[in-house]
Amino acid sequence: MSKHKYFKAFAAYAGCNVVLAVAAAALCAFIAPAAAGSGIPEVKAYLNGIDAYSILAPSTLFVKIFGSILGVSAGFVVGKEGPMVHTGACIANLLGQGGSRKYHLTWTWLRYFKNDRDRRDMITCGAAAGVAAAFRAPVGGVLFALEEAASWWRSALLWRTFFTTAVVAIVLRAFIQYCNTGKCGLFGEGGLIMYDVSSAKTTYSGSDILAVIFLGTIGGILGSIYNYFVDKVLRTYSIINERGAAFKILLVIIISCLTSCCSFGLPWFAKCIACPTDLTVSCPTVGESGNYKSFQCSSGYYNDLASLFLNTNDDAIRNLFSTSTTKEFHISSLFIFFGAVYCLGIITYGIAIPSGLFIPVILAGACYGRLVGRLFESMSTLDTGLFALLGAASFLGGTMRMTVSLCIILLELTNDLQLLPLVMLVLLISKTVADNFNKGVYDQILKIKGLPYMEAHAEPYMRHLVARDVITGPLVTFSGIEKVGNILHALKTTGHNGFPVIDEPPLSGPPELCGIVLRSHLLVLLKRKNFSRDRVVTGDDILQRFAAFDFAKAGSGKGIKLEDLDIEEEEMEMYVDLHPITNSSPYTVVETMSLAKAAILFRQLGLRHMCVVPKSQGRPPIVGILTRHDFMPEHILGLNPHVMPDK
Amino acid sequence: MSKHKYFKAFAAYAGCNVVLAVAAAALCAFIAPAAAGSGIPEVKAYLNGIDAYSILAPSTLFVKIFGSILGVSAGFVVGKEGPMVHTGACIANLLGQGGSRKYHLTWTWLRYFKNDRDRRDMITCGAAAGVAAAFRAPVGGVLFALEEAASWWRSALLWRTFFTTAVVAIVLRAFIQYCNTGKCGLFGEGGLIMYDVSSAKTTYSGSDILAVIFLGTIGGILGSIYNYFVDKVLRTYSIINERGAAFKILLVIIISCLTSCCSFGLPWFAKCIACPTDLTVSCPTVGESGNYKSFQCSSGYYNDLASLFLNTNDDAIRNLFSTSTTKEFHISSLFIFFGAVYCLGIITYGIAIPSGLFIPVILAGACYGRLVGRLFESMSTLDTGLFALLGAASFLGGTMRMTVSLCIILLELTNDLQLLPLVMLVLLISKTVADNFNKGVYDQILKIKGLPYMEAHAEPYMRHLVARDVITGPLVTFSGIEKVGNILHALKTTGHNGFPVIDEPPLSGPPELCGIVLRSHLLVLLKRKNFSRDRVVTGDDILQRFAAFDFAKAGSGKGIKLEDLDIEEEEMEMYVDLHPITNSSPYTVVETMSLAKAAILFRQLGLRHMCVVPKSQGRPPIVGILTRHDFMPEHILGLNPHVMPDK
Repeated sequence: MSKHKYFKAFAAYAGCNVVLAVAAAALCAFIAPAAAGSGIPEVKAYLNGIDAYSILAPSTLFVKIFGSILGVSAGFVVGKEGPMVHTGACIANLLGQGGSRKYHLTWTWLRYFKNDRDRRDMITCGAAAGVAAAFRAPVGGVLFALEEAASWWRSALLWRTFFTTAVVAIVLRAFIQYCNTGKCGLFGEGGLIMYDVSSAKTTYSGSDILAVIFLGTIGGILGSIYNYFVDKVLRTYSIINERGAAFKILLVIIISCLTSCCSFGLPWFAKCIACPTDLTVSCPTVGESGNYKSFQCSSGYYNDLASLFLNTNDDAIRNLFSTSTTKEFHISSLFIFFGAVYCLGIITYGIAIPSGLFIPVILAGACYGRLVGRLFESMSTLDTGLFALLGAASFLGGTMRMTVSLCIILLELTNDLQLLPLVMLVLLISKTVADNFNKGVYDQILKIKGLPYMEAHAEPYMRHLVARDVITGPLVTFSGIEKVGNILHALKTTGHNGFPVIDEPPLSGPPELCGIVLRSHLLVLLKRKNFSRDRVVTGDDILQRFAAFDFAKAGSGKGIKLEDLDIEEEEMEMYVDLHPITNSSPYTVVETMSLAKAAILFRQLGLRHMCVVPKSQGRPPIVGILTRHDFMPEHILGLNPHVMPDK
Repeated sequence: MSKHKYFKAFAAYAGCNVVLAVAAAALCAFIAPAAAGSGIPEVKAYLNGIDAYSILAPSTLFVKIFGSILGVSAGFVVGKEGPMVHTGACIANLLGQGGSRKYHLTWTWLRYFKNDRDRRDMITCGAAAGVAAAFRAPVGGVLFALEEAASWWRSALLWRTFFTTAVVAIVLRAFIQYCNTGKCGLFGEGGLIMYDVSSAKTTYSGSDILAVIFLGTIGGILGSIYNYFVDKVLRTYSIINERGAAFKILLVIIISCLTSCCSFGLPWFAKCIACPTDLTVSCPTVGESGNYKSFQCSSGYYNDLASLFLNTNDDAIRNLFSTSTTKEFHISSLFIFFGAVYCLGIITYGIAIPSGLFIPVILAGACYGRLVGRLFESMSTLDTGLFALLGAASFLGGTMRMTVSLCIILLELTNDLQLLPLVMLVLLISKTVADNFNKGVYDQILKIKGLPYMEAHAEPYMRHLVARDVITGPLVTFSGIEKVGNILHALKTTGHNGFPVIDEPPLSGPPELCGIVLRSHLLVLLKRKNFSRDRVVTGDDILQRFAAFDFAKAGSGKGIKLEDLDIEEEEMEMYVDLHPITNSSPYTVVETMSLAKAAILFRQLGLRHMCVVPKSQGRPPIVGILTRHDFMPEHILGLNPHVMPDK
């Protein structure tokens, strides 16, 4: 073939990639910007109690599915796993909201899920189902939801996620069986085990363990460096992306071209290798996927680098994990591929397409592991395919910092129970090493996005502060029977979602805290206009005029809004009894309570509002209300600079 | 052989069994009664916050180890898994207490674990290590600790248990490799996978799934019946066991004789079967373990029932799980063995020896599964060995009601990842079915033992009560600077472990709650005799006279006791400043707080004392203190009979 044809081929290849990439980027930029990226940090934030708008909206779902398909097709070094977790969570959210009114998908029976806790449970199950489907790893899905996604965990939830992923496994199994007949492409390939390495022998000795410890240590360091650069690149990209949709798409085009150049250009550096003779598969490969791509080589030869670059990410991983094929890839080829994938993975995450982190990390890790396996060839008897698996484990441990769930996911991916002790060892070492340098990649992304994530533990400096120290702003309170005008004014002028209700004389003796009332409930009450001319207690009878589900938590953006109210001037002077809708058992802390203890109470119980009451008598019955934002380090340290942590 | 010789053999067999059984029973009855039974409920109770004396004492550890060895050797239908969990927890407790002073095993550096939380973490890790070692299932151990043992879970704990079980796996792997050389008996058999079924083919169709659903349903019912009878038998036995050590030992002897009779007598009902011809193992078996016991049969024949009965429990399970040996056991033999093991399992649990529940349940379940497999032979293509595995899963799900952890343990026992969807399905069905009838077996045992276990959720009737409704007894409070005599009097006359401290004039304006002081801290303070003649604030300087670890939680039975104090008459009239040792941030609830919410606060935060404060002003600053016992259903319903739950 002439050189000319290769340029033509490159043009076609790069052109297709750019078109697909632009399509994905356009979907993201114009329809749902929230669909960009992995989605796992967003799900994690939602399950922590952050109700950010559009994270789980139907439009995000749509873009996530199609954007992910387009993005993976465009040849980027991105995975579909993170987006599948987000997709699962979005579907769960749609069900949890009782369908979407905007898109005319509503089911009445789903209204039973219209409260925070059940919806959160649904979304946890959705995330678990996403992992279960992505890796064909049902138990791994449960553990992922437990270890990484969920902030609160109950045994009932364990049971529910287990049920969800069992259904996923059974459905998946049925599809695979149906597709094994050849009716639906590559779906059935590999069965439930995507990268089977169980055929390799798994005896190992002391020197193997030393090699594995080395692998884990360096893998942990490389993983934390990966995190460091992802962080830097994300901060840079977010500046570019903020400038508008055009910039977003431009960035995607640049990265796409770069990826195409690497994929098509770098294989030229590899020498042609003669096909091994004892093969059961054809060499060079015929058709799309396979171990032996011919590229520029003549018949009977293959280009090992092309087998990695010009393949789907899934097949590249399968090639790297393949056992009993020690010499298949040259050390130099592995080195080039590792460098390229490591860098491309870093610069690709953050562009405006749905992009998972699992596959790039596994790809780089597997390549790194195979490289180490080749280097230790003389002193270790372990198969290079198993080294690739352990390398992937070390990278995953080093970037994502999970343990049990990664262990089980890798187990379910590769069917190598005998190797379990080594996988555990590698994960432990790489996580421990990497934890010395920085935080897990998802925690970093959460921080860059500025989401107010509540950590499970209180920071040490909180022990030197008390609850009173972090209260800010004027407190807006209502009386037990309040003037409609006052309520409307408070709703208009503040953004608070919870207001303390105080009983004052003549309803009680000295003023006392009656409870807390939510903005959404106030809106429902005002909408019905059950007002009275005087300060009278209407009592709980008023609740009978409402249906049981009127106060249920509406779907995002679907509740009654302040603008929906139509209160006339004369009604402004009337009164409304707030007692029926007041939560009379709010969680309270005394103002002198240690802030660390208050934070633990807030976090463990999953609160949204916490009342701070005075210690001494004879003062107003409430000092302030603490919300999630009051526990954020920036807020606390801004108010109390003297407790600044040492480091 | 003559009949006479068989009687002799029986006498020798039964005699050995009884001697071993009596030894185990004597250890239990005289040295550590707490070592009887499984130990998992006790560990679960400890991790829930119940500090029952002797549950994890060194003597219990000793008896648990040797009693379990003797008990299993005596041929009882009992397992070593539960005792191993308890053993792991005991060792962890020994380390967590800083060793045992009584047995001269102390390490100074272990004092860092001398607080409730770290000790609880240690014991969770110990329990996980126990499961990991018993089943050679490191990940299963982590999940068991998470799902069944622990009441509070933090991500740090996940990481710690994972580390522990990884070490267990690596040590175990090293021992197995060493023992494979034949130097240490049967230890190495089976490698890390105890019952490998991965050689069976695992394709299944719709009719197989129907068979599996049937299996799961009946398994769940049989499991809940098992629980029902274990409950009844336990209640009966506890009456017998309470009458003294002699009765305990007598009961053990009776059960031992019964077991021997069954094991030796029932195989006579089985016909001799001709050995299959295509075997790689010898038939009839030579030596201790194996699939084909000759018993009374002549050469070339084997007795299938004897192969099950006259084997170790481990080998019997291995025989039942063996694949590609459909016809090995007659249906009638399986039926007899199932009935015998089911009944023996029920009547054995509760006698005064360390006895696990896993093995009897797995044994009965595997036999039941194989039986179902034989019955569905014509319509199902699944191997009978896999049916046995699924049967074991259904029984485990039906009695213990765990999901993920059982799933992973079975996976790690049998190496059958392809079968995962079916195992999940069976566990789901059997647990769901059984949950309709009664609670899990460990929860039942907890209840019989009368341990005040705090459930994770609040009971519905608690919503109709407020915190004030469950307060009982006179409240004993201290003043901020209290007379030594008063403190001593309170410590002597009450059993309370926490006392509220109230600042009164002239130290403050109106009386206010200063905090809560612990009995153990009071004892440390009084021991040092830093008293003053007058009511003066000594301040925090006094703490400098104590070392950092003086207030650390001492090991069980090792703290300062009231009798250790030697306060003279004149010192009784002196004062001591309680402020330095007062916890000034106790968690408080208002007296009108919903009891359900108070219970959740108490449980989620793992409290031991909760202060109830008055709602209205002008009253004493504390209404009462709630402890674990105040949240027990019996206590609440005793005080408030009108909220009796419907059922």
